[in-house]
Amino acid sequence: MTAPPRTAGLEAAARAAGIAPADLEEFFELLRFPSVSALPERRESVAACADWLAGLLRRWGLEAECVTAADGAPPVVVARSAPKPGLPAVLIYGHYDVQPAEPLELWESPPFEPHVRDGMVAARGATDNKGQTFSLLLGVKHLLAGGGGLPANVKIVLEGEEEVGSPHFGAFLERHAARLACDAALIADTSMVAPGWPALTLGLRGILCVEIAAKGPRRDLHSGMFGGPATNPALALCKALAGLTDDGGTIRIPGFYDDVRPVPEEELAHWRELPWDAAWFERTTGLRPVAGEPPSGCGREERSYSLLERLWARPTAEINGLTSGHQGDGSKTIIPARASAKLSFRLVPDQDAGRLAPVVTEWLRRAVEAQGVEAEAVFDHGGEPFHMPPDDPAVRAAAESLEAVFGRRPALVREGLSIPAALLLRRHLGAPVVLAGLGLPDCQAHAPNETFPLAHLGLGAAFLADFLRRAAARLQPRAG
Amino acid sequence: MTAPPRTAGLEAAARAAGIAPADLEEFFELLRFPSVSALPERRESVAACADWLAGLLRRWGLEAECVTAADGAPPVVVARSAPKPGLPAVLIYGHYDVQPAEPLELWESPPFEPHVRDGMVAARGATDNKGQTFSLLLGVKHLLAGGGGLPANVKIVLEGEEEVGSPHFGAFLERHAARLACDAALIADTSMVAPGWPALTLGLRGILCVEIAAKGPRRDLHSGMFGGPATNPALALCKALAGLTDDGGTIRIPGFYDDVRPVPEEELAHWRELPWDAAWFERTTGLRPVAGEPPSGCGREERSYSLLERLWARPTAEINGLTSGHQGDGSKTIIPARASAKLSFRLVPDQDAGRLAPVVTEWLRRAVEAQGVEAEAVFDHGGEPFHMPPDDPAVRAAAESLEAVFGRRPALVREGLSIPAALLLRRHLGAPVVLAGLGLPDCQAHAPNETFPLAHLGLGAAFLADFLRRAAARLQPRAG
Repeated sequence: MTAPPRTAGLEAAARAAGIAPADLEEFFELLRFPSVSALPERRESVAACADWLAGLLRRWGLEAECVTAADGAPPVVVARSAPKPGLPAVLIYGHYDVQPAEPLELWESPPFEPHVRDGMVAARGATDNKGQTFSLLLGVKHLLAGGGGLPANVKIVLEGEEEVGSPHFGAFLERHAARLACDAALIADTSMVAPGWPALTLGLRGILCVEIAAKGPRRDLHSGMFGGPATNPALALCKALAGLTDDGGTIRIPGFYDDVRPVPEEELAHWRELPWDAAWFERTTGLRPVAGEPPSGCGREERSYSLLERLWARPTAEINGLTSGHQGDGSKTIIPARASAKLSFRLVPDQDAGRLAPVVTEWLRRAVEAQGVEAEAVFDHGGEPFHMPPDDPAVRAAAESLEAVFGRRPALVREGLSIPAALLLRRHLGAPVVLAGLGLPDCQAHAPNETFPLAHLGLGAAFLADFLRRAAARLQPRAG
Repeated sequence: MTAPPRTAGLEAAARAAGIAPADLEEFFELLRFPSVSALPERRESVAACADWLAGLLRRWGLEAECVTAADGAPPVVVARSAPKPGLPAVLIYGHYDVQPAEPLELWESPPFEPHVRDGMVAARGATDNKGQTFSLLLGVKHLLAGGGGLPANVKIVLEGEEEVGSPHFGAFLERHAARLACDAALIADTSMVAPGWPALTLGLRGILCVEIAAKGPRRDLHSGMFGGPATNPALALCKALAGLTDDGGTIRIPGFYDDVRPVPEEELAHWRELPWDAAWFERTTGLRPVAGEPPSGCGREERSYSLLERLWARPTAEINGLTSGHQGDGSKTIIPARASAKLSFRLVPDQDAGRLAPVVTEWLRRAVEAQGVEAEAVFDHGGEPFHMPPDDPAVRAAAESLEAVFGRRPALVREGLSIPAALLLRRHLGAPVVLAGLGLPDCQAHAPNETFPLAHLGLGAAFLADFLRRAAARLQPRAG
């Protein structure tokens, strides 16, 4: 006799999910942990969630434990199947921590009490990342329960600090590289294009953050007493930054584009079929997508870029903030002592943040100094771009599995932002990293009323099982 | 029998001042009022100071009263000598309110207890403006006491809100224009060039303050998700403002210089003799005076301007503040929703703030819009420039009087800032306004340990007496 399910309507929901009620009950139990890594008062819930996950994986038949990432930091759940020699190893990465649920008043049901409606489950973390990752784990459970065993060795690593920027995950991977060695890593933390239209995210942009300051007079000067002969650092800064891009939006720093790799034709072909167009961009941002490098269709076809190229595969230079002088109400007629700007540059393969940091800071410093004022340029931080070639064997295997399960060839997309875990896995484990999104664009990740389609639990499990089979056939085992 | 003087060493100090101990005692009594107009808790002291001044002037033999400037505002002390028909009227303007004395810990003696050392009296308001104005008033007292009567009709108006921007003085003058009508107004609220080197301030710059904003996305956007096609309003603003001046520092707004009048050669000749050079500028501000329009000596002699021309007689465009996006520590990788700048333009004769306001705001709006973003330009406030021609009869009379008293021909200078009272007197009374400074550059107006040279009390009184005689001979009486 099993206990009656805690969740009303569980039977019907499980049918919609294509999984057993007991599987769904486990998922809902996972969703009930308020594992908000950003909130100190949730620290115990975060740790309890990790403990519960390790226990769950052990009950399924895996070796699992909570491993300390750093003093006082949430543990990392590490698990593996009983190793079988000669099989490749697939590492599943996910994170069990979630964003804060606030503002609570905008939730239609409590964020940590899963609520089912119209085939969707609503809860904080439903898609990001408990739902997506649980569906992969469920694939492992089903294979283990099926008695046929796993077609590949499986390793699992579940982080508890993804939503606060994965501050300890790189060091953790470095320390445990041998134990976590794998032939492919799989992450389900991105998005499909639309219902029934899966996607593989092959690229992520890197980043380079700097700050540039123009120094003016010793202290703010009276603009009446000293205005005219005194160089205004705010005007000097504007003149320097105005030269950052040309009229077409191309960044004017010499050498900046040297290592930019063209997008493979296979990816470009996919992008032309995607539904993200100028109307979508304007609806989402309130801006017409006219900036960046020359857009295609602008009449400068010898060197123009589509909307998605500019979003995903071209570098950018953005001013993130400007600060100088008087910023309150009314006027204060001063020549400010200082003006500064925060800038970030998105980088694409094969640009290197480390190589570009001095190039960019030096260019900015000289551009300000050319205006006759002292300058100070400071490098803040950088991150590498990420790209998996579409013909990588692990990518091909994942594409075939997604097509087999969802009935449609996956879009090969990129994203314009960074996902630290993807970079860190590739850097420290040296394995191909496959980003197969199982969420939908309207799942409201990070927002109130976050949801996940129940059907994706069963589909995700089926995808994982299929992927392990294909990986076993395609990948040469390097790792035990 | 008179009461013993309240101030130790008064006899010696009066000898240094070239005036009677009783005169000096009156001055010290004036300095003891903490008539700080900016501080509500000093309101009674401000009113008491006005009452005391009106009483003093009556004791000297003038008609005097306190007149309400506005509900709750400090009164204006208005006085006049018994009118003699056929004589021109000279109006003496001064202000009895002072700046706050803070920071008190930097004062070497209490700010409202006059302290004499090395021929200087230290007190808040010693030079600005109690000392300078009292010396003129003393000239009236001496003439009245001398029995010969006044050579011209004298009117006196002493404001109590100068240090808070003269908010009610224009309306006050408008209301009392008939009563205050005069043939010349005299203000002693500026500075001499150096000890023994008097100055007449013939020009002041006007001002035009505006704010320009560039509007970006509906709200701050994730620079990774949307960077590239999204126009960055901070970059757009920088590009727009970069075009404000050309490489030589000339303002590029069409029509901006249309009404700029060249400086009369007589003034330029005086300026070449003045001690304010590049070394002084750099010592004072920490900046080499290389900005503004092409400096003389720069090799572009067909159109170049000396340091003092650029400080006093050329218009400027300054960015007073820049605001956009993230301004705290570290990085925040956003495309900001908005970027804005506060600007002020110093104007020179005959530029007109009212005419230029729409020219400037429209130019800024279009410059931002040319970057492909929406713009919002707002006019904040404006003020006219001021100039008295060196050959104005009242100016000539004052120059001769200063030379007679100080033994040196006065420098004909200007200042780069505005003095509202000078503008308002000219606008509402229509009379020439003579700015004859009796302070010294190191008198520390507005700063701790403000001082005034005791000798200037007697010299200022002598100047006033001489000026009234010359004015009577030179000026055609229009006012009664």
